[in-house]
Amino acid sequence: EQPDAAAPGAGAISRVLIVMAMEKEAMPLVNKFKLVEAPARESIFPKGAPWTRFYGIYKDLHLDLVMPGKDAVFGVDSVGTVSAALVTYASIQALKPDLIINAGTAGGFKAKGASVKDVFLASDVAFHDRRIPIPVFDMYGIGARKTFAAPNILNELNFKLGKLSTGDSLDMSPQDEEAILSNDATIKDMEGAAVAYVADMFSTPAIFVKAVTDIVDGDKPTAEEFLNNLISVTAALDVAVTKLVDFICGKRISDL
Amino acid sequence: EQPDAAAPGAGAISRVLIVMAMEKEAMPLVNKFKLVEAPARESIFPKGAPWTRFYGIYKDLHLDLVMPGKDAVFGVDSVGTVSAALVTYASIQALKPDLIINAGTAGGFKAKGASVKDVFLASDVAFHDRRIPIPVFDMYGIGARKTFAAPNILNELNFKLGKLSTGDSLDMSPQDEEAILSNDATIKDMEGAAVAYVADMFSTPAIFVKAVTDIVDGDKPTAEEFLNNLISVTAALDVAVTKLVDFICGKRISDL
Repeated sequence: EQPDAAAPGAGAISRVLIVMAMEKEAMPLVNKFKLVEAPARESIFPKGAPWTRFYGIYKDLHLDLVMPGKDAVFGVDSVGTVSAALVTYASIQALKPDLIINAGTAGGFKAKGASVKDVFLASDVAFHDRRIPIPVFDMYGIGARKTFAAPNILNELNFKLGKLSTGDSLDMSPQDEEAILSNDATIKDMEGAAVAYVADMFSTPAIFVKAVTDIVDGDKPTAEEFLNNLISVTAALDVAVTKLVDFICGKRISDL
Repeated sequence: EQPDAAAPGAGAISRVLIVMAMEKEAMPLVNKFKLVEAPARESIFPKGAPWTRFYGIYKDLHLDLVMPGKDAVFGVDSVGTVSAALVTYASIQALKPDLIINAGTAGGFKAKGASVKDVFLASDVAFHDRRIPIPVFDMYGIGARKTFAAPNILNELNFKLGKLSTGDSLDMSPQDEEAILSNDATIKDMEGAAVAYVADMFSTPAIFVKAVTDIVDGDKPTAEEFLNNLISVTAALDVAVTKLVDFICGKRISDL
């Protein structure tokens, strides 16, 4: 045993990477944690990438909040799996985080107990729009994986627990619905399983915090309900992420 | 004007990155170009990434052929947009290629003139499974873009020209079909638009060479037809890529 390893605070989580897809979801947290935007000339990302990074010290933690940024052509947040995977990858390589938090909004299934403004931790992630009907490739496409288990977070912070299914569409086709049911998912987003895929590649523990903006199996159109609820649900998400970050402070990965 | 810029051969394409998704498609080219596999200890990719790289000198060109490699859990080729985007990104950063060739197999639409074993260059790429029915986000999701125009390749090498639509499923749902029609696509693959997205991000010219393994609007099941034709169509693909690489030798980007 090395003395350092036994010292108080040794092994405590130091560097937390928060990955979020939408600026509207992220800016309240940027303000709450007093993060500052990394200037372009000091970017950890290569020229050309639209990805953005805010960083700072919050209590004992180095916090980095990254986003895929605005699409160069269309100017909207670069949502979806490809951008989320890329910015997660580049951030892991540059920042070597101890822990990733993927925070965002999600659709929820009332048949599985979800309501608008609920905040979920994802116990599992999978894709619902990667159908490859060839043996073994089919399972690769679904890409189901358990997330990092954080029983103490779950017990102390009052989040709901559910499975998350990810796809690149905001709406849900009948084929998507069938796959989401097969994935046993309570919540549906556009990034989680891609972030999990990259985090697992580099053995970085990742926690998925998703706040419900719209009820997928309800009677309101998803896009309309999503936009109507985005601001208020973002507030619930930000409260949840703040509680989570406060809980993480001073703890080790094995304490979560 | 600098003397170097006017010297014979100045500005000639030097470094070509070939991105392929499946080992079965790539190995004949690895052999043809006498490429060798980069050993793990010298990898340009970080530990944990399943991506593989073969490299060598062929005539005047530095060739790198990269693949997303075998999935760590399932052992199959890591097909699809997320892996293709990641390995393209990491390869561009490490290798700074002058030109990217994304080569692979594709489904073809006979209604648009495609037959099995046809080899296409993609004039345009777009996604067909990223439906986001919110203004502007809808266009971001589709992500249609023109590819690098290579009129001399097209004139001299006898490829067909068509639009390419990309999605993460091998099959085609009714929603996919509608989007593919809307994308005016002649061919359908699982990586092209993601490779194009990353290549454009870093202003790297990219050429998409796709050989047709199966007729999507025909009467045979896609997975069966794909597997039955994979070997013979791969041979046609490899002939086409060899012709293309031979054509590129000694040329400038503006000569293509």
